[in-house]
Amino acid sequence: IMAEWTECMNFGISVAKQASQVVLDAFKKDKEVMLKSSPADLVTETDQRVEKILISAIKEKYPTHKFIGEESVAAGDRVELTKAPTWIIDPIDGTVNFVHRFPFVAISIAFAVNQQTEFGIVYSLVEDKMYCAQKGKGAFLNGVPLLTSGQEDVNQCLVVTEIGAERDDLALYTMTSNIMRLLKLPVHGVRAVGTAAVDMCLIATGGADVYYHIGMHCWDIAASAIIVQEAGGVVIDTDGSEFDMMSRKVIAASSLAVANRIAEVVQAFPCRRDDVDPSILGNDQENEWH
Amino acid sequence: IMAEWTECMNFGISVAKQASQVVLDAFKKDKEVMLKSSPADLVTETDQRVEKILISAIKEKYPTHKFIGEESVAAGDRVELTKAPTWIIDPIDGTVNFVHRFPFVAISIAFAVNQQTEFGIVYSLVEDKMYCAQKGKGAFLNGVPLLTSGQEDVNQCLVVTEIGAERDDLALYTMTSNIMRLLKLPVHGVRAVGTAAVDMCLIATGGADVYYHIGMHCWDIAASAIIVQEAGGVVIDTDGSEFDMMSRKVIAASSLAVANRIAEVVQAFPCRRDDVDPSILGNDQENEWH
Repeated sequence: IMAEWTECMNFGISVAKQASQVVLDAFKKDKEVMLKSSPADLVTETDQRVEKILISAIKEKYPTHKFIGEESVAAGDRVELTKAPTWIIDPIDGTVNFVHRFPFVAISIAFAVNQQTEFGIVYSLVEDKMYCAQKGKGAFLNGVPLLTSGQEDVNQCLVVTEIGAERDDLALYTMTSNIMRLLKLPVHGVRAVGTAAVDMCLIATGGADVYYHIGMHCWDIAASAIIVQEAGGVVIDTDGSEFDMMSRKVIAASSLAVANRIAEVVQAFPCRRDDVDPSILGNDQENEWH
Repeated sequence: IMAEWTECMNFGISVAKQASQVVLDAFKKDKEVMLKSSPADLVTETDQRVEKILISAIKEKYPTHKFIGEESVAAGDRVELTKAPTWIIDPIDGTVNFVHRFPFVAISIAFAVNQQTEFGIVYSLVEDKMYCAQKGKGAFLNGVPLLTSGQEDVNQCLVVTEIGAERDDLALYTMTSNIMRLLKLPVHGVRAVGTAAVDMCLIATGGADVYYHIGMHCWDIAASAIIVQEAGGVVIDTDGSEFDMMSRKVIAASSLAVANRIAEVVQAFPCRRDDVDPSILGNDQENEWH
């Protein structure tokens, strides 16, 4: 059956490459237009178009498979990871980058069966870097095998994180004080390129040692999590427990020692789980634009 | 005489490309070795080698020109920008990135006459992106003209900054509270790729709208400052006054309106000017590794 998932992965890669052309074309359009109308609207337009291309192509080939897509969820779909083969899709990870033409934007596609991720694809399309990994088969960047740094000493670490879209006082204070505490350990430095998927793939390349993030969604990190694991890295929750793609908290690290040390230092702010039953929720929609 | 500086710039570009091979070769060497010995030492070795290659090649062609180089200053040279033609060189901007193989590392070369920058060259060598600008002649990336975003509304801005190497409480508190205040304005987001030279060139491309930094040195930003200006951007001091490459404080922005707004929000911590007379200083060497 693993051979079947290999075929699925190869199909996912080819669909991601096709869909990337829509994003690259939008990149060339007049930026003024994109920023003048509500940027959230225009972004949603391209996001939705790319997600539709991906899902319709995959559905045609695999009609029984299920989907969790950022845009479908924004349109009201419930996030529910069943045991069925499920594609978890972020059509454009790095939406703010996309609007600004900051050159890091990715299509992220993960595939889970029995609630276990079988493969992940992250295509950083401006850089033309195709990251992918299949369970038990290693991680690759444009066909070249990836290996994390293996770093075990937090004081030697280059840290990547994102501040994300939250702007309330508690979230901002938590995030900036996390950075301050890390720098005081000290660590070598802190970086942020603006997409969780690409940030985590940089851990897989060994170019940085640890990534943490609070507030992102399952579609931002499901694919890059298996890429980090297959490159020899470790993925856990920021509270030190097992990785849970629905918890909206993640640490991806070169080693368990570093992951645990970061879990000790980093504090989280409250985030609603991705898979909460929407019927129990009121009308207080979060601002999902980030 | 402008034609003469054009010739100098073209020579600078070719020398930067040659020297980049040394950095790329070092990138391929075993990273373990680089991190196990004191990373500062190994870095200095490559830094020094590259600076020597650059300065000796330029000296041979222009024997009367003067130099301000990061490594020469670290070795005791005084930073003094006279009216003579002067090359201001950072052999590796993004030293921490270099040690970790985080893929943003630049050779930065500026050239000043009568204390005015005539041209700037920033070669982001892993990306193979050659940025350059000559006074009055526009800015280019791999030959393609650059234009800043022109953004005038700070609330629409993507901000780039670096936290740098300072680790004392005042610097850390100032830097993280600057980020918090900016996010509360709000701005669209904050990014950091780990090299001041490349960060500022991203403003020149229009991919982000404003960069600020406190604590960097003249060789980190002299070249990228003219690249931003020639791309239509504005460069000022973080206190709102005229840009002073020796002050160790800079804002590079898409517009004067945005630059001034950032100057209102961002606070600086005390930094010793680059061109202070070293004879008046004691032995309290700063940690210059960043």
